[in-house]
Amino acid sequence: MKSDISGFPEFLPNEQIAFNKVIDAIRKHFELYGFAPMDTAAVERISTLLAKGDDNEIYGLYRLADEKSKKDFGLRFDLTVPLARYVAANSGKLIFPHKRYQISPVWRGERPQYGRYRQFYQCDVDVVGDGDLSIEHDAEIVSLITGVLSSLDIPSFHTQLSNRKILSGFLKTIVEEKKVANVIRLIDKIDKISREEFDESLKKMRISKEHVTKLKNFLNTAHRGDNFDILKRLRTFSFNEEYACGVMELITVFQILKKLGIEDRHVKISTKLARGLTYYTGTIFETTFDDDLNDIGSISGGGRYDNLTAALSNKNFPGVGATIGVSRLVSQLIEKGLLETDKFSPATVLVTAQNHEFVGSYMKIADRLRKVGIKTETYLQDKSLGVQLSYASKKGYNFVIIANEMELLEGKAILRDLKTKEQKVIRTEYMEKEVLDLLM
Amino acid sequence: MKSDISGFPEFLPNEQIAFNKVIDAIRKHFELYGFAPMDTAAVERISTLLAKGDDNEIYGLYRLADEKSKKDFGLRFDLTVPLARYVAANSGKLIFPHKRYQISPVWRGERPQYGRYRQFYQCDVDVVGDGDLSIEHDAEIVSLITGVLSSLDIPSFHTQLSNRKILSGFLKTIVEEKKVANVIRLIDKIDKISREEFDESLKKMRISKEHVTKLKNFLNTAHRGDNFDILKRLRTFSFNEEYACGVMELITVFQILKKLGIEDRHVKISTKLARGLTYYTGTIFETTFDDDLNDIGSISGGGRYDNLTAALSNKNFPGVGATIGVSRLVSQLIEKGLLETDKFSPATVLVTAQNHEFVGSYMKIADRLRKVGIKTETYLQDKSLGVQLSYASKKGYNFVIIANEMELLEGKAILRDLKTKEQKVIRTEYMEKEVLDLLM
Repeated sequence: MKSDISGFPEFLPNEQIAFNKVIDAIRKHFELYGFAPMDTAAVERISTLLAKGDDNEIYGLYRLADEKSKKDFGLRFDLTVPLARYVAANSGKLIFPHKRYQISPVWRGERPQYGRYRQFYQCDVDVVGDGDLSIEHDAEIVSLITGVLSSLDIPSFHTQLSNRKILSGFLKTIVEEKKVANVIRLIDKIDKISREEFDESLKKMRISKEHVTKLKNFLNTAHRGDNFDILKRLRTFSFNEEYACGVMELITVFQILKKLGIEDRHVKISTKLARGLTYYTGTIFETTFDDDLNDIGSISGGGRYDNLTAALSNKNFPGVGATIGVSRLVSQLIEKGLLETDKFSPATVLVTAQNHEFVGSYMKIADRLRKVGIKTETYLQDKSLGVQLSYASKKGYNFVIIANEMELLEGKAILRDLKTKEQKVIRTEYMEKEVLDLLM
Repeated sequence: MKSDISGFPEFLPNEQIAFNKVIDAIRKHFELYGFAPMDTAAVERISTLLAKGDDNEIYGLYRLADEKSKKDFGLRFDLTVPLARYVAANSGKLIFPHKRYQISPVWRGERPQYGRYRQFYQCDVDVVGDGDLSIEHDAEIVSLITGVLSSLDIPSFHTQLSNRKILSGFLKTIVEEKKVANVIRLIDKIDKISREEFDESLKKMRISKEHVTKLKNFLNTAHRGDNFDILKRLRTFSFNEEYACGVMELITVFQILKKLGIEDRHVKISTKLARGLTYYTGTIFETTFDDDLNDIGSISGGGRYDNLTAALSNKNFPGVGATIGVSRLVSQLIEKGLLETDKFSPATVLVTAQNHEFVGSYMKIADRLRKVGIKTETYLQDKSLGVQLSYASKKGYNFVIIANEMELLEGKAILRDLKTKEQKVIRTEYMEKEVLDLLM
């Protein structure tokens, strides 16, 4: 992945093929669950983009032909704001629960020197209810994400699972309500900062030593035993109604996941999980690779939010969803050599043209293979067979078909396996079957 | 297709499913020919965007956090400029001929009152050579486009085919060289303006009556007989070398198309075809629906260009390619009722949850169907069966599975076909087979 303009990375063809393979697998899996594709416009009103917060890492647009024109529009920085705007605008035409996925680029108008992506793909899946949305949807989203990641050919991973009400309910027993969000934000950074920084920050928030000890004990609740043990332990505490409700919801979600056969190595109940974004109100989860690939950071995350369209509509649309940070994921897997990137063509077979005069005949051979679904390129330049074979190797082709003028006339050709170097003479009338046999 | 912000249209879920079906068919076909996917960043340097001309219907970008920051970037307005920039920047890493397709949105910074799309998808396929590119690639692109459009479930169409050198060579025999481009641009509009306007424009260019008659006769060359007759007639004229070369190239391309079995109803040689864009230098073509759907205008078009990277690199990269205007195509087909839009979900089966208490069991049933590739949604809200069945109908589901508590315990369920209203009791252990049988 290189970048012609800093922050706007682009793939080479072999990398793009690897990226698309991941995207296609994700799409296929989302549709297997009945989530419909969505593709909102890249452009939103700036007022919409700013409605939920003060994030101003936004690219605004102006018309080059008229720099003085009104600057109302900007590029989306995530896929949640567009979903909220879309649901609010189209609620009369949608069928609820509205299940959609969107795999699209988003833009962040960061300063170039940050060296961070200014365009990257997000891959969001959400279900939005009209007024209410049952807790079972939370379990479905977690199961969906576990399923989709398992279907990819990637290293082992696990999902930390919790419920925002658990941490929030507990925190209200040790700090004033207005401090809760700040403490949650701090806990969200717990793995990125030192123990001293953590303590120092709590001190600055004027939280007593006694309460800090209580907090640390609570955060470590999930450090002993398996998921069942942890849930049992969480049930023994009775802090307040919010906390109790969070534990109940977490148990419901976990029970369904077990019923669906999700393995314990894939889901870990965690009382430390905070998910900084304040709009989560219930189930929260975050997926990372197992220990040895921890540096890649979070692959996916998400949760339940009580009202998607808070700033945009009077109606109440609760939802639950997840994001897969697919640009970073694929780039890092490629960098670590964990994704196959040796194919520069989506096709499997190259039909060479030993005698350029008969190029139409070679094109017909390729067309026959395509008719049975075999992806095939014909070499159309007037070059030596050696150049053509080297082209085939460089592009990562599996098979080449070679025929000279005489062989064409006799209805014969050579089918060569570029990996094993084996080759055989085939009759072109059985060609499709011969190639299909090799591909099976 | 509605538009929340004027010029930035968005689909409803059923329309998006129809759109994606078209896109997927196109992608599949491009890859069948060995064209690799490409996805350049949406953002280009404004200097790159302006390098080839004075098109200033461009959206520039600024950082909202710093309005005074340098305004170097803009959104792409087509997919050719990014291809040129990408090839020039990566030529050392690409394998030539470089075959790529890109299906991406482009943006036009038009005034809102134009009522035209300011974001729409283009679907480009190109092959780019390093230094040279044989004429057979032109035939492949035309055959590819005919093939991809035939594979879509759309009304009958035909492709007008010509070679820019034919018209240009001929025109040089009646007007000065500097006027040629203007006359070509006028001929490009011939079907959109009246005969009087056409004559008037030629008069303004100071073209003599005699030459106007000659021009009209030439443009009508293709009006009598079939493609072979027309090519024969074109060969009888000997205007100049450029013209002769154009005819030769056109014959080569046409002969390959015939060899590949392209039917005459799909390709029509046309001496009137101009393709306004001046960068075409050889083969040109344009596809439209047959008579009764003529108002939709061009579906696809393209041609050969001598040097893709003229303004960006010292090297010479000739290419040939085509564009399918897929946003307009799909929107118009939907408007005319020519694309199926009754499915609001990509899935086929809805597993209802008659007794919400057992929702985990219904989710397991759905999971079993998914394991054999059947796209299945589970209804997870706590609503009456009637509400669930109405949800299934509205979403366009083909089948529902219904089971009450007792049936679940007995390992039975009802499988109902929502179209025929037929239903049968099935044993859940054979469920996958039962549903697959119905789908075949």
